[in-house]
Amino acid sequence: MKCLHCESLYINKSLIYESKYWRITLAPDQGYLGRCYINLRRHIEKLSELKKEEWIDFAELVKIMESALKKAFCVVMFNWTCLMNNAYQDELPNPHVHWHLRPRYDHKVEFSGVIFEDKEFGKHYDRTRNLEVSDEIRNKIISRIKENL
Amino acid sequence: MKCLHCESLYINKSLIYESKYWRITLAPDQGYLGRCYINLRRHIEKLSELKKEEWIDFAELVKIMESALKKAFCVVMFNWTCLMNNAYQDELPNPHVHWHLRPRYDHKVEFSGVIFEDKEFGKHYDRTRNLEVSDEIRNKIISRIKENL
Repeated sequence: MKCLHCESLYINKSLIYESKYWRITLAPDQGYLGRCYINLRRHIEKLSELKKEEWIDFAELVKIMESALKKAFCVVMFNWTCLMNNAYQDELPNPHVHWHLRPRYDHKVEFSGVIFEDKEFGKHYDRTRNLEVSDEIRNKIISRIKENL
Repeated sequence: MKCLHCESLYINKSLIYESKYWRITLAPDQGYLGRCYINLRRHIEKLSELKKEEWIDFAELVKIMESALKKAFCVVMFNWTCLMNNAYQDELPNPHVHWHLRPRYDHKVEFSGVIFEDKEFGKHYDRTRNLEVSDEIRNKIISRIKENL
């Protein structure tokens, strides 16, 4: 069965960081500046299948990313989610374990001429509010995060 | 500063399971049958402050809970989130690390005369669709989960 997540493991375009077991890429939607995905580098279907060493590696990534994003953009706090709902829209669901990381802000952030605003700060993230930025801005966001890793 | 999560650590009413570092309770909202909270038993503000042994203990809980809920109610898959947004509505935010676990279903489940239906299966959970059940039903849900731990 086809897995888009497995295929994406070979695309370096949005790559921020790679650890032994995980791979972090910038999400297409930057409604929450610095929003990214953390994909497991092997295909498993649910969190309960993760190995101990993969959890320990993930714990390290949580520290690395929270610290880097705080330094890069003055993030106030973070929303971490592991959902995988969309995979179940297929007749033969083939989910791939990955995390969503949404940085949250109590202030506007201007970066490379774009103003990012978290209007729902203190509340649940809003999935309908998307913000696609140009490749140039995306690359600058990735660079800024990498400089702070 | 007051922390409702710390205070709740001494309330056993909705307790499902307690490990060395975490405490699992049934959520008041049962819109997703078996929805529960996993609270860290000490007060820290963000995931990046978790110690290695707390992550390893959490990894074990993920296995225990996914297995128990599957056996108890034929859960299809699970949404795990660590958000803590509400704490930031206070002037002096004092978040306490906790997880939300929402079991998701591709079928109706009848339990103790109540029909539970996950109308958004395959999509993001709906936070506006709440279902409060009686104390009697809540206790039965807790018992059913505990029997399957």
